[in-house]
Amino acid sequence: MEAAKLPYDRSYNFSAGPATLPTEVLEQARDEMMNFQKSGQSVMEMSHRSKVYVDIFTRAQNSLRQLLSIPDNYDILFLQGGATMMFAGVPLNLLKTGKEGKPTVDYIITGDWSKKAADEAKMYSDYCNVNIVVDSKQGADYKTIPDQSTWKLTPGAAYIHYATNETIRGVCFNTLPTFPEDAVVVCDMSSDFLSRPIDVSKFGVIYAGAQKNAGPAGATIVIIRKDLLGRQLQICPSALNFKKQADKASMLNTPSTYPVYICGLYFDWILKHGGLPWIYQQDQEKAKLLYQTIADSKGYYELFVTDPKVQSMMNVPLRVFAGGEQNKENMTPHELKFVAEAAKLGLVNLKGYRDLGGIRVSMYNALTLDGIKMLCEFMKQFQAQNPPL
Amino acid sequence: MEAAKLPYDRSYNFSAGPATLPTEVLEQARDEMMNFQKSGQSVMEMSHRSKVYVDIFTRAQNSLRQLLSIPDNYDILFLQGGATMMFAGVPLNLLKTGKEGKPTVDYIITGDWSKKAADEAKMYSDYCNVNIVVDSKQGADYKTIPDQSTWKLTPGAAYIHYATNETIRGVCFNTLPTFPEDAVVVCDMSSDFLSRPIDVSKFGVIYAGAQKNAGPAGATIVIIRKDLLGRQLQICPSALNFKKQADKASMLNTPSTYPVYICGLYFDWILKHGGLPWIYQQDQEKAKLLYQTIADSKGYYELFVTDPKVQSMMNVPLRVFAGGEQNKENMTPHELKFVAEAAKLGLVNLKGYRDLGGIRVSMYNALTLDGIKMLCEFMKQFQAQNPPL
Repeated sequence: MEAAKLPYDRSYNFSAGPATLPTEVLEQARDEMMNFQKSGQSVMEMSHRSKVYVDIFTRAQNSLRQLLSIPDNYDILFLQGGATMMFAGVPLNLLKTGKEGKPTVDYIITGDWSKKAADEAKMYSDYCNVNIVVDSKQGADYKTIPDQSTWKLTPGAAYIHYATNETIRGVCFNTLPTFPEDAVVVCDMSSDFLSRPIDVSKFGVIYAGAQKNAGPAGATIVIIRKDLLGRQLQICPSALNFKKQADKASMLNTPSTYPVYICGLYFDWILKHGGLPWIYQQDQEKAKLLYQTIADSKGYYELFVTDPKVQSMMNVPLRVFAGGEQNKENMTPHELKFVAEAAKLGLVNLKGYRDLGGIRVSMYNALTLDGIKMLCEFMKQFQAQNPPL
Repeated sequence: MEAAKLPYDRSYNFSAGPATLPTEVLEQARDEMMNFQKSGQSVMEMSHRSKVYVDIFTRAQNSLRQLLSIPDNYDILFLQGGATMMFAGVPLNLLKTGKEGKPTVDYIITGDWSKKAADEAKMYSDYCNVNIVVDSKQGADYKTIPDQSTWKLTPGAAYIHYATNETIRGVCFNTLPTFPEDAVVVCDMSSDFLSRPIDVSKFGVIYAGAQKNAGPAGATIVIIRKDLLGRQLQICPSALNFKKQADKASMLNTPSTYPVYICGLYFDWILKHGGLPWIYQQDQEKAKLLYQTIADSKGYYELFVTDPKVQSMMNVPLRVFAGGEQNKENMTPHELKFVAEAAKLGLVNLKGYRDLGGIRVSMYNALTLDGIKMLCEFMKQFQAQNPPL
């Protein structure tokens, strides 16, 4: 098999995040690096309060609003710190509900990230009770999502938190769960953000670190229904205070100016090609190809998540056991060989998450169909050439 | 006067931050944008846990350690959220001192930023008493720093906080104040970071947003003495928890990967040219030229800070009254004309801070001596051609 011949000798990058970006976005960033549109400055050098930069920032917000059809009663914030900072930001900003007594918050745990979010909320146990609605580690090892009939939602909870897609184990809510009409639904969409059209009006807060599906690390997107602003605790750091940031159009302090600029280019790249319907069609096609290749392998490649209802379009952890002992990073001899040979062909970052071992294919928005086609071809060839030991 | 002829038609950028970057740094970033050193990836696309990126990150830390001669008993963290996030981060990380009773924290207020830091600490009044050691607004309108003999330090305070340089009004501690031997000194150095050699061992914590003197917005540097790690309150968000971040080499969560890379290039640029002694000599020369030009104007240009002991090498707010009424942004007709004519020549972002009006010259590390020379030449010519009304 020939190594990939990509522009600039670039690899197909299957990293789980930070992740591959559209080549056109990087080209534009490169071309504008020394002097952005005759402004005399690089975007990195611009005062965040200058007209030229505020236009970049506002355009990014408007493009995102257009992409997701975000209703007018939602604010879009560009903050910092990633999803991990928002794990604290969510309770810090939503607990002052105006009701009597200590509020309860509901957490749905379907993997490592939603577990971390719940653990962070527990640090604020002086301010709220954390109710675990469901924890699919018990009994399911995070391999599936238990039926909603088994969930224990709290009537009148301050909010319900979940993560649409779990990056590590690749479990995904492919459809929106059914929640009570008046529930404040808070969702970490970091790893499937902008991968399909969604109905934003079903959510109270959506947040996402940009570095998987929407840009580089350092920009964190928060979409919040305006009536939820003002529920912050006094102990909420100002830079993390959704209300204060919304009042200042995300410029209470200096935002992460360059990463937001790149996000804007990424949003515009999606819009130019057809918006979320286009991305969704692409992402479905990529996922179909990969899952079909795995199915055709007759068990040579083993999926971690076998229930098609909750399989992710974004992250697919898989194993190649085929005999031999695992090393201390949970890698079998075949897996080590797979990762090394793929890398030689320009298919990189396929090593699985360190605790889980094996292989993980992440195929975010910017990973092209050609990349997945080449990976699937490689997988077939690898299987043919490397029978079980 | 001829417009500046700079490479790439770039302007001399006097922005107070985000601010000008070395041309060589931007060139390298541009050249490495599509494929960093044959890695097949842009730095923006790299997994923060990949070897190629960890090397970039570690190199940035090592270069900073070398530049500032940071002793081994200090950790260097690259976090997110800028100084504003650290205004909360400081009390959240330093209040559990192990002593009985509610701790007192000492704040020295010499301008808008140190005032904001103190106000943020007051949000944690359930956890500490905030003592204002001195507030130079009273009586001095933040134009000078009252003599240390008037300060009211608290014996046994959990920490003493101050800011070396006030970006808005240009008041600067040009020498380190004298503090008790066992004091935990915490310093916001955002706007004069890396502008001169300092004795890090005098400080408990130094922090700085990178976007003035050390890189782009989105990277926040924290230098902390290791024995101070572990004093965080339970309510401290994990991503802002110095101890948790130090334990994970600043990778508890995804750091702001690209801004840190640019910081690293900036550090290396300083090292290549001679380190902090070189920068300090440059910065002194630039400041001398500007202050001399102002002095030579015989009052045409009026300084906000007239006491040489506390004048800043970095930010110099000044006024051109010369008759006429100020507009609602506190700009006189001469100032408006000054800013507009300077911009036509490629001298940009000279408008003063919005509350203060007038002109502000920010001349951070990356602003070249040539830029200041041209500005001073322009100032003389402007004065000659625009007599008082």
